[in-house]
Amino acid sequence: VAERDLIDYIRSLAESGASPPWLSVGIGDDAAAAEVPGGGRFLVTTDMLVEGVHFEPGTPPHAAGRKAVARAHSDTAAMAARPLCTLAAASFPPAWSDAQREEFCRALWETAQEVGAPLIGGDLAGAPGPMTVTVTAIGTPGPSGPVGRGGARPGDAICVTGRLGGSILARHLSFSPRIAEALALAERVDLHAMIDVSDGLSTDALHIAEMSGVSVDIHAELVPVSADARTLAARTGRDPLWHALNDGEDYELLFCLPNSQGADLAQAGLDDLPVALIGEVTDHDESRLVTADGTARRLLPEGWEHR
Amino acid sequence: VAERDLIDYIRSLAESGASPPWLSVGIGDDAAAAEVPGGGRFLVTTDMLVEGVHFEPGTPPHAAGRKAVARAHSDTAAMAARPLCTLAAASFPPAWSDAQREEFCRALWETAQEVGAPLIGGDLAGAPGPMTVTVTAIGTPGPSGPVGRGGARPGDAICVTGRLGGSILARHLSFSPRIAEALALAERVDLHAMIDVSDGLSTDALHIAEMSGVSVDIHAELVPVSADARTLAARTGRDPLWHALNDGEDYELLFCLPNSQGADLAQAGLDDLPVALIGEVTDHDESRLVTADGTARRLLPEGWEHR
Repeated sequence: VAERDLIDYIRSLAESGASPPWLSVGIGDDAAAAEVPGGGRFLVTTDMLVEGVHFEPGTPPHAAGRKAVARAHSDTAAMAARPLCTLAAASFPPAWSDAQREEFCRALWETAQEVGAPLIGGDLAGAPGPMTVTVTAIGTPGPSGPVGRGGARPGDAICVTGRLGGSILARHLSFSPRIAEALALAERVDLHAMIDVSDGLSTDALHIAEMSGVSVDIHAELVPVSADARTLAARTGRDPLWHALNDGEDYELLFCLPNSQGADLAQAGLDDLPVALIGEVTDHDESRLVTADGTARRLLPEGWEHR
Repeated sequence: VAERDLIDYIRSLAESGASPPWLSVGIGDDAAAAEVPGGGRFLVTTDMLVEGVHFEPGTPPHAAGRKAVARAHSDTAAMAARPLCTLAAASFPPAWSDAQREEFCRALWETAQEVGAPLIGGDLAGAPGPMTVTVTAIGTPGPSGPVGRGGARPGDAICVTGRLGGSILARHLSFSPRIAEALALAERVDLHAMIDVSDGLSTDALHIAEMSGVSVDIHAELVPVSADARTLAARTGRDPLWHALNDGEDYELLFCLPNSQGADLAQAGLDDLPVALIGEVTDHDESRLVTADGTARRLLPEGWEHR
């Protein structure tokens, strides 16, 4: 996938120079963490949606605008950040009416308010081609500081919130980013690594493994499969588990923590939200999907590589 | 222009709610200024370029990438900010080759380094339609704190750096944002208001007037007309002054300061850069373009309303 290659290319440029001292997490994580003179820090990420790629043409403008803001703040949530503010830039094709554009902008505004990160800037243009929107989400570090993808350690439990798969049926437009949940986790447990499930559980677990220099074992029977994954599987003929592993756009939290804390958390849940302990971090040569009968196969990144 | 209406709409939403206490400059200025817990402030702006609108199809990718980053940091420069970091999101049409995409990404990276604001995050996607890129520029307040558009006072001198007009011939791709110059100004004079000349001198002067609740008198014979404006005028049949007033994309600094400081500065220049004193802030009912023979007409925003 060319976009992934390009991001690797930019990362290689970043790694070729000395990282600036004020940058604590950079390219390759859900958000970058930077320090400002005076001592405070912020986390920032930028995320683009394209009509026809991230939402279907014909999607109500308010749903598209909502998704754009929610998705960007799902990235800062994955760093256990407190929301601070939002910026957005959108290009509207000629076919979008003034009413549609206004509905879209209102959704940006309202969703930013809803997640606690007011819209403080933006840019708008008319352009042929699909509608595009780029949202910049800014937060500040939560109680544990920024939680990146790179801190998983062999022996850690791997947990995930909610239920996965089939989000294309509806949830990919209606989800709420797990901001409060991530902050609650940062208060209660030692988060070694975290990511939001956007590319798909398989791909995102492998992102953590790669950034942490470890492997993961995911236990197939422990993966929380959503009702939507089953509905979709009935249409596609695939296994519901496949959808839970690979569909992505769940915007749930996937995280690594000390094993005993993971077991306790899976028992208790996170307030009303189920938490599943789905595997463990290993020092094996490869990451694996382990089935109930004990057989294992290599875990492949079958989710979308980039969207 | 629909985009301008939408921005006014978003601004009206912003003004309908109480502004958060950590936000010192918001929508409607070149950049927003926000405070982070622990102290310290940053300035942030997001700016979108669309192929066919902001650069011609066929523009070398490195020139387009360079412009995208330089333009966004021209906005933070207009707040007299020190550059901190950069994020960018781009959508590439299928016709762009891998080599073109890589050249574009390298330009983003190199220009961010060049302006002193390393690229710390981004997003890339493939999409039909024109190439689009959205750059988020982040800075920290310079020696005088953030300089917005809203502080001009009747009696102030209005000054502009450089020479204006005809940027479409080349400068709109090759300019360097006036970052060091803005910081030098903030050290040496009392900047009451500042903006970068992107929409055009006429439109941008009126932006300052509107945000400051004042009017401006611009003296036609004092406007610094570039050689490019003359070259272009020979082709278009317009007056070179018209191009200097309205072409935009000059990315020079337009600012208001105490009258005596303005006169001294215009005399001395800013190191090697010419500074022209082109008018004054007034409490008149309307902003005017005043000619050498003393006649005056209403100053109209004939620059691009939004690009």
